[in-house]
Amino acid sequence: MEKQKQRGEFDLIKELFVPLSKNSQGAFGLEDDACVILPDPGFELVVTSDAIVSGVHFRSDDPPDTIGRKLLRVNLSDLSAMGATPLGYILAIVLSPEHRGDWLDSFASGLAQDQRTFALTLLGGDTVSTTGPSTFVVTAFGQARRGSVICRSGAKVGDKVYVSGALGEGALGLMVLRGELPNLSDCDTKSLVNSYRIPKPRLALGKRLTHLASSAIDISDGLLADLGHLAKCSGVGVDIQESLIPMSKEVQGLVSQIPSLAQLILSGGDDYELAFTAPPRNQEAIEAAARDVGVPVSCIGTIVKTAGVRCLSRDGVNISPDRTGFTHF
Amino acid sequence: MEKQKQRGEFDLIKELFVPLSKNSQGAFGLEDDACVILPDPGFELVVTSDAIVSGVHFRSDDPPDTIGRKLLRVNLSDLSAMGATPLGYILAIVLSPEHRGDWLDSFASGLAQDQRTFALTLLGGDTVSTTGPSTFVVTAFGQARRGSVICRSGAKVGDKVYVSGALGEGALGLMVLRGELPNLSDCDTKSLVNSYRIPKPRLALGKRLTHLASSAIDISDGLLADLGHLAKCSGVGVDIQESLIPMSKEVQGLVSQIPSLAQLILSGGDDYELAFTAPPRNQEAIEAAARDVGVPVSCIGTIVKTAGVRCLSRDGVNISPDRTGFTHF
Repeated sequence: MEKQKQRGEFDLIKELFVPLSKNSQGAFGLEDDACVILPDPGFELVVTSDAIVSGVHFRSDDPPDTIGRKLLRVNLSDLSAMGATPLGYILAIVLSPEHRGDWLDSFASGLAQDQRTFALTLLGGDTVSTTGPSTFVVTAFGQARRGSVICRSGAKVGDKVYVSGALGEGALGLMVLRGELPNLSDCDTKSLVNSYRIPKPRLALGKRLTHLASSAIDISDGLLADLGHLAKCSGVGVDIQESLIPMSKEVQGLVSQIPSLAQLILSGGDDYELAFTAPPRNQEAIEAAARDVGVPVSCIGTIVKTAGVRCLSRDGVNISPDRTGFTHF
Repeated sequence: MEKQKQRGEFDLIKELFVPLSKNSQGAFGLEDDACVILPDPGFELVVTSDAIVSGVHFRSDDPPDTIGRKLLRVNLSDLSAMGATPLGYILAIVLSPEHRGDWLDSFASGLAQDQRTFALTLLGGDTVSTTGPSTFVVTAFGQARRGSVICRSGAKVGDKVYVSGALGEGALGLMVLRGELPNLSDCDTKSLVNSYRIPKPRLALGKRLTHLASSAIDISDGLLADLGHLAKCSGVGVDIQESLIPMSKEVQGLVSQIPSLAQLILSGGDDYELAFTAPPRNQEAIEAAARDVGVPVSCIGTIVKTAGVRCLSRDGVNISPDRTGFTHF
């Protein structure tokens, strides 16, 4: 620990981060003013950026390796929603003194683990200190065939609305960590917390959707909030059926015990599943693509002319809550 | 002010930042999960990132528009050292409540001003809040012909060492702001502070050096520190002559009044001039390029075999100080 406290800026970079860049020629061993990225011929670069702040986006008692992994994964989730394949990332570290020792080693080991999982490499960055909470910013790079990226703005009236996977586990995992779901089995607890801490970016599905989906977004702020963003960008509205929203058996069980949790499935966020739209004629191709990549997709509604997002209960009542997702200020 | 305090995350983005992205199709009006960048045919993308923290990299009484401008310019300076032409940038804003109102409007107006100066556009980013000091991270994109970027690692024994412009004004400007140079004329004060707050990235010169320089770096940490980085990356050493270091008349005057300031010219940082090396045969071409772009360059030394950086006084004594530049921890 003493040794680590004494590591300077350049030692930190050399010990923890240069090894993360070793698979990239263009990173120049993190020793240059900038890095070089060249997309494959016929491809364009897709770039996204996410910032996380200690105490806001992660908890001081989260294992640091999972914080690093989640930071990469939320960026990869953005790339997946555009249909891009990840290439690498730039990391800005704004470090509080409390995170300078073993904590940062563990954080970097999480990055290393997910670099292997997703065939990514660290390309560059900056390391500075702060008196405030530690903050990390990842700018992630992917590539997609020129003109093939899926935007939020392409949904058309009559398109079907789909989501991947199952919703609610991330938001319930956060409730568990806050002590708000005290009576769960150890197994349920572990599984929900894991979903919150280590989301699964839907990269293979996103890539397959490039020629099938008319629009896509990843669900980070909450299903209704993110469908709202998509609808607004496309100049359309969304009607979904509550009964069609996919949930794991575990989550279904919890919702039937505590009916107020149903709201959380709609607006909780932290799902990192894809919500997307497609013309009805693509339904079979979408189902085939989903089978190929091993990710279930569910059709939950339709794009309509009337602006806004309506979530209809079995008896046709709009149950969209007023507050539909997380905003920062 | 009241109105501004109530601006939410999405209002902030819409009011202040969407207008900064309007020249880029690939930014999608900042409404999508990611942006798209496509370098020109035959070009590769050059990417750099710098983070600044309130109280560390800028002062709470710095005019916010100059903070935005300097943040862009230090990134452009990194691109200039690689010989790249800027395209756009991604901005992560980690905002303290104290900066949420007029301050942020002024910060954004500085970005707008320098976007026009450097033909840049905002491509994307993220906006989050913090309880600590505000932090801003820019990831800047440029392009260079494939294989033409200038690296820090190319210096060869026998190469000449050059710097652009004149050194010391940035470091002296910071001293002025700290009240450490109280007896200057108003004119000197203004000019030095201006050099500190609004550095001039040497983009035109950097681009011309792509086929002339063997290595390059921009001087941000201090002349000796940055030459040290360059020498280490190239596996060589650097000998420079103190008497050849270019200074403005103003700075020369101050150094002759206060001889201890000489040290600051060598290790003060915040110059954002280019230090570069080139084989002796390129001397005339370098001088011609410098004339063309209107930026003076001075030959200040030679690349040698012995590792390290030596700064020799007129009588041949090595006056390199031990502490050669700024590090963050």
